[in-house]
Amino acid sequence: MTGNWYQDGEHVNSVAIADRGFSYGDGLFETIAVRNGEPRLWDAHVARLQLACRRLAIQEPEVDTLLSQIQGALATDSHNDGDALVKIIVTRGSSARGYAVARNMDPTILIGVFDHHRPPTKNYTQGIHTRICHSRLATQPQTAGMKLLGRVDQVLARMEWNDPQIAEGIMLDQQGALICGTMSNVFMVKDKRILTPEIVNCGVSGIMRGHILELLRIRRRIVEVAEFNFETLASAGEMFICNSQFGIWPVARCGQKRFSAWPTTRDVMGYLRESGVLEGPP
Amino acid sequence: MTGNWYQDGEHVNSVAIADRGFSYGDGLFETIAVRNGEPRLWDAHVARLQLACRRLAIQEPEVDTLLSQIQGALATDSHNDGDALVKIIVTRGSSARGYAVARNMDPTILIGVFDHHRPPTKNYTQGIHTRICHSRLATQPQTAGMKLLGRVDQVLARMEWNDPQIAEGIMLDQQGALICGTMSNVFMVKDKRILTPEIVNCGVSGIMRGHILELLRIRRRIVEVAEFNFETLASAGEMFICNSQFGIWPVARCGQKRFSAWPTTRDVMGYLRESGVLEGPP
Repeated sequence: MTGNWYQDGEHVNSVAIADRGFSYGDGLFETIAVRNGEPRLWDAHVARLQLACRRLAIQEPEVDTLLSQIQGALATDSHNDGDALVKIIVTRGSSARGYAVARNMDPTILIGVFDHHRPPTKNYTQGIHTRICHSRLATQPQTAGMKLLGRVDQVLARMEWNDPQIAEGIMLDQQGALICGTMSNVFMVKDKRILTPEIVNCGVSGIMRGHILELLRIRRRIVEVAEFNFETLASAGEMFICNSQFGIWPVARCGQKRFSAWPTTRDVMGYLRESGVLEGPP
Repeated sequence: MTGNWYQDGEHVNSVAIADRGFSYGDGLFETIAVRNGEPRLWDAHVARLQLACRRLAIQEPEVDTLLSQIQGALATDSHNDGDALVKIIVTRGSSARGYAVARNMDPTILIGVFDHHRPPTKNYTQGIHTRICHSRLATQPQTAGMKLLGRVDQVLARMEWNDPQIAEGIMLDQQGALICGTMSNVFMVKDKRILTPEIVNCGVSGIMRGHILELLRIRRRIVEVAEFNFETLASAGEMFICNSQFGIWPVARCGQKRFSAWPTTRDVMGYLRESGVLEGPP
């Protein structure tokens, strides 16, 4: 389903062709899990959205207004029973043709409410199958980490497979380093060290990734945020992916590499539950 | 002005929020000069559009239908007297949330008609001032050359200056090679050799660039399509930029480098006129 969209409290289905979000991908988005009526990890989503607005020099939405618009949209929307997915799109707004940006542009702020689809339990218990994608991420340090509207890298990667047994595709950067999934971030475990690729030249600084890193810091687990490649994968003992909706899925297969036990991953899934991210079987 | 847009012969102002062109930049565009009622260099624009559709696996528009829709839009539109700018946007169409692409999606095809604004004569006679942009182009070989909707690199580059005396910004790749302007391609001249950056990892394969290269081939001029950097610029005797709307503008200044005579550029401007691209003073 395509969701119900709201702008300034009104139900909308369309956006102006002259909106720069459409003409130039000149905007960004956030995808937030709503549980028991509350946007989860709200502060972190807001912080990333504000950072992205600043980097693009788009006027930042007023946070209290944004939250009350989301709550209004959730109250209006009959589809949800407290659990939902909210997508916020912020664009620079409409302009004449051409890349030049006028002063004091009026950003477009859209709030979409979608049903929450609970993933299969086995994704949490047996782990998922993933593939290594041929399509690689563009190198662009100045927008790395952000969720810009333009996602053609991810679309091309996601088009590489139809097999419903494959839950995610893992993407490499132009030099062949492992970066993230099409819709998730990646962690590996090696000798009790918990590894996750640094997001410097491409990829998304996922909100759940950030939350997990914070939980690991509090628990004083050994973490390495660095550049990792196929050799790291080959020698890893565990792998898992995460995103803001599903929490953590252990990885049972990544290309030819198989994993069959996830003791450290189970620890991290426990930390996540204790932090209030109640995804997967209890 | 924001132009008049048409879809299937009907005037439209908006596009669905669920259109993947908006949600994911999942589409492409062409900007075509119309002169005396005819889309100029039509075959080349169509070839690039078709190539981009194939690379993205978007169903290609039927060319005769597209041309007759453009002619219909031009006939409907009262703003133009035979000269106009036509922008074609093709997206993968609307879909549910998520990067996965359904089979047999119905592409969105939009045709925009804009007024033709004749550039200042001095751009052709005295040359233009350009700057070197800090914002660099993303490295992405799999979509290099194409005009994808996502143009944040160009938007960020264009935001670097407000000085109306600067007509264009020149962009580098991640390694510092000169690639193209925010809205144009670049040529340099050195010892009668005509140089233009190769479009391999980033940048747009401009239609006017391709037309000029073909004219130079026919005239048996010495051309080098390769990687060029600041040293090339420093030692070049002439520089010019081109695009499908304005033809060729000599460059009088690029950053600190100045140019004051353009004998070879004038030759190329002559070839262009002889080929029917009648931009600038006779």
